[in-house]
Amino acid sequence: MGRFTTSAEMVDDGVTSGDEFVLWLKQQREEHPHEVTRIPFADLDGWDFDGRTGNLAHRSGRFFTIEGVRVQTDHATWEQPIIDQPEIGILGILVKEFGGVLHCLIQAKAEPGNPDGLQLCPTVQATRSNYTGAHGGRAVPYLEYFRGEGGARTLVDSLQSEQTSWFLGKRNRNVVVEVSTDVPLLEGFCWLTIGQLHQLLLTDNRVNMDTRTVLSCIPFGVPGGPARGDAPPEYREGLLRSMAPAAPSLHTDGEVLGWLTEIRARREFRRRVVPLADIGHWHRSDDEIAHDEGTFFRVIAVDVRAGNREVTRWTQPLLAPVGPGRVTLLVRRIGGVLHLLLQARSSAGVFDLAELAPTVQYRPGNYAEDPPFAGFCGGQTRYDTVQSEEGGRFHHALNRYQIIEIDDEVEAPEGFRWLTVHQVTRLLEHGNYVNVEMRSLLAGLHVTW
Amino acid sequence: MGRFTTSAEMVDDGVTSGDEFVLWLKQQREEHPHEVTRIPFADLDGWDFDGRTGNLAHRSGRFFTIEGVRVQTDHATWEQPIIDQPEIGILGILVKEFGGVLHCLIQAKAEPGNPDGLQLCPTVQATRSNYTGAHGGRAVPYLEYFRGEGGARTLVDSLQSEQTSWFLGKRNRNVVVEVSTDVPLLEGFCWLTIGQLHQLLLTDNRVNMDTRTVLSCIPFGVPGGPARGDAPPEYREGLLRSMAPAAPSLHTDGEVLGWLTEIRARREFRRRVVPLADIGHWHRSDDEIAHDEGTFFRVIAVDVRAGNREVTRWTQPLLAPVGPGRVTLLVRRIGGVLHLLLQARSSAGVFDLAELAPTVQYRPGNYAEDPPFAGFCGGQTRYDTVQSEEGGRFHHALNRYQIIEIDDEVEAPEGFRWLTVHQVTRLLEHGNYVNVEMRSLLAGLHVTW
Repeated sequence: MGRFTTSAEMVDDGVTSGDEFVLWLKQQREEHPHEVTRIPFADLDGWDFDGRTGNLAHRSGRFFTIEGVRVQTDHATWEQPIIDQPEIGILGILVKEFGGVLHCLIQAKAEPGNPDGLQLCPTVQATRSNYTGAHGGRAVPYLEYFRGEGGARTLVDSLQSEQTSWFLGKRNRNVVVEVSTDVPLLEGFCWLTIGQLHQLLLTDNRVNMDTRTVLSCIPFGVPGGPARGDAPPEYREGLLRSMAPAAPSLHTDGEVLGWLTEIRARREFRRRVVPLADIGHWHRSDDEIAHDEGTFFRVIAVDVRAGNREVTRWTQPLLAPVGPGRVTLLVRRIGGVLHLLLQARSSAGVFDLAELAPTVQYRPGNYAEDPPFAGFCGGQTRYDTVQSEEGGRFHHALNRYQIIEIDDEVEAPEGFRWLTVHQVTRLLEHGNYVNVEMRSLLAGLHVTW
Repeated sequence: MGRFTTSAEMVDDGVTSGDEFVLWLKQQREEHPHEVTRIPFADLDGWDFDGRTGNLAHRSGRFFTIEGVRVQTDHATWEQPIIDQPEIGILGILVKEFGGVLHCLIQAKAEPGNPDGLQLCPTVQATRSNYTGAHGGRAVPYLEYFRGEGGARTLVDSLQSEQTSWFLGKRNRNVVVEVSTDVPLLEGFCWLTIGQLHQLLLTDNRVNMDTRTVLSCIPFGVPGGPARGDAPPEYREGLLRSMAPAAPSLHTDGEVLGWLTEIRARREFRRRVVPLADIGHWHRSDDEIAHDEGTFFRVIAVDVRAGNREVTRWTQPLLAPVGPGRVTLLVRRIGGVLHLLLQARSSAGVFDLAELAPTVQYRPGNYAEDPPFAGFCGGQTRYDTVQSEEGGRFHHALNRYQIIEIDDEVEAPEGFRWLTVHQVTRLLEHGNYVNVEMRSLLAGLHVTW
């Protein structure tokens, strides 16, 4: 934990200087052009709508399937398309000490749905087929270190969920492994400290979702050193206290688990996978599957030409949300310790009935009524960037991520709770507790030390 | 934790003496006759096979459904009937101090599948419909204390799985709440210390599965007092050390979680719910659904006449396993600390891909080959009783539960790990880690102090 903290504190003196990094990224961008064009479904290569179910799947049975899902909760019953990709992949960051400080091996990679081409990705993003070598194919660089080879030591390892509004129970393994032997630096990769990655989280669309979620799972000790932003000292003090294991918290860990257990047990949540052809209020045209009112998202098809991919040209479906989303975390000092206002959220694809989500998470315009706290005004902004979600599945899925500190005493309404940073971090040792949007914000919170 | 330990240490001096308990149980048995008769499916009242899917369901949509499931793993592909009961019920024990010692409010209750009529049940076994009052109906006694009423304080609360071979992802909330005000003692209920319940776990089929699983979730401190059984002092010493938070263990908690995460990510496990009519190698006759080779289990129908139930006569399907099962836990002192040999097991209905199970868990005769350690000979038996599984769903589902201490150094094979008692107990704070058979053995382990 202490070594992670040291790496997080180092922004300027890593083996890759800030200038070198900028140059490297510019070069990557030039060398790896990426062109994405929308096409009609009929032009998809290897993808078909099943004659009976209407599900969109690849002929090989690989990749993923677009199916339908019917959900019944206490408040509503609805049907929607959903991505079914049952296998668990690996999101892995390889770390190694240089000058006594841990550095992360980061990859520059373009995904078809990215709004702005290249992003910074984990060392490895591998499917289970890659991992087990089931389908042969070109080797994924550095994968051996995540298979217990090369003398690597596992520091972080848990199953974490992906976007539960669009994926059916999808989870990936979030892993950090450390190696102490020499590691060849391949083209397209770069060593960065955790502090450098934290700084990059201030730039829109630069650090991809997979990197953000792995970063969020790293347990930090309480950092020292100078403050990072321009937040007042009492905010910083409250944040650092909130990260400490013995942080006084509004609720005990047992109370938090009991509260979530009660919600999972009491809340009505029934889900059935149904044929895509059978779902109501959605229609399919030549080039999209869309809601009758144009809300939520569309399923589209794209043609991709890329310079640095194993396959340099391919076609695939993508899920394109309608409009940018808002993801806001309200934070407040309670007894001098920063607390985060989380909600227990049940989306269509949630794996275990409800997960902890940021205070506000929605796409304006989808519902007649905005969710609680959506119209919240006031407070001090501590973090505010636009980040995109997984570009391999989602097209321009932008969210504005904000952390806002409030002074007013706000009671947590039904389904909400105030938690410390340490409590959320502890839950991340296990899967099925903290959703991916909250994990992105947790990574962002570390920029505000 | 200390108060649970004190209650566990008290066997003889509780408010209900041993003699009073024996008398009370005898009286309960006499006053509540229970008659169960097998009937053809056609005589089920309100239950029908769906014309299209062949699924067996109640007309009201309540209770449970028998459906089909298709499972594909690394080793095999199979289809089987499975019970789908998506809602989460409550298994709750109400505790209260008498003379400064916690006592559990236990109910004597007969379930149609019990091999021997009455068993000792938790204070409350309620479905979600009971809990939310969705269907009206007669009130479940003491339920209010589990709904945050009556000033009760929650001491234990987690979602735990039921039999994953027969239930589709079924989980119940395991709860212990404490009340300090007066509690009326209703007919059919009795106050027992945890120590008394532990002793009763030595009798075959006396303590029902629901009580055993709630008992297993109670965290104990290291007990003092005299030894309970005739195990040698070094066994007892090893067990007590294994219960302590700082017990030196073969693997760290992080290593154990990483090992299970790796298995969940790497193991192939695909499951589809399919119409019961579509599954292969199973057939339906007038009075049973059975495997073509007579193995695994049958689905049967019964007529029940009971004296002390809300409804005094009803019919229902039950799942009847073929032959008794064997559930064995090998334990060994490693560095003077007792370690338990657990396996990561993936059954058809498992909620999260794999759960920790006892060393051996199988029904002889179902497979050509016995599982690892099934033929294990030698060692010292520390616990050995026959217990039945949930009598509301399963007919005479008997398992012989054994804990056997071995001296030999046995390496944990692939998919197995040696854990301390404290490590298993810590995992029980969360759901989806420890299967119900292992929880029964954990409850049994406490008889061997």
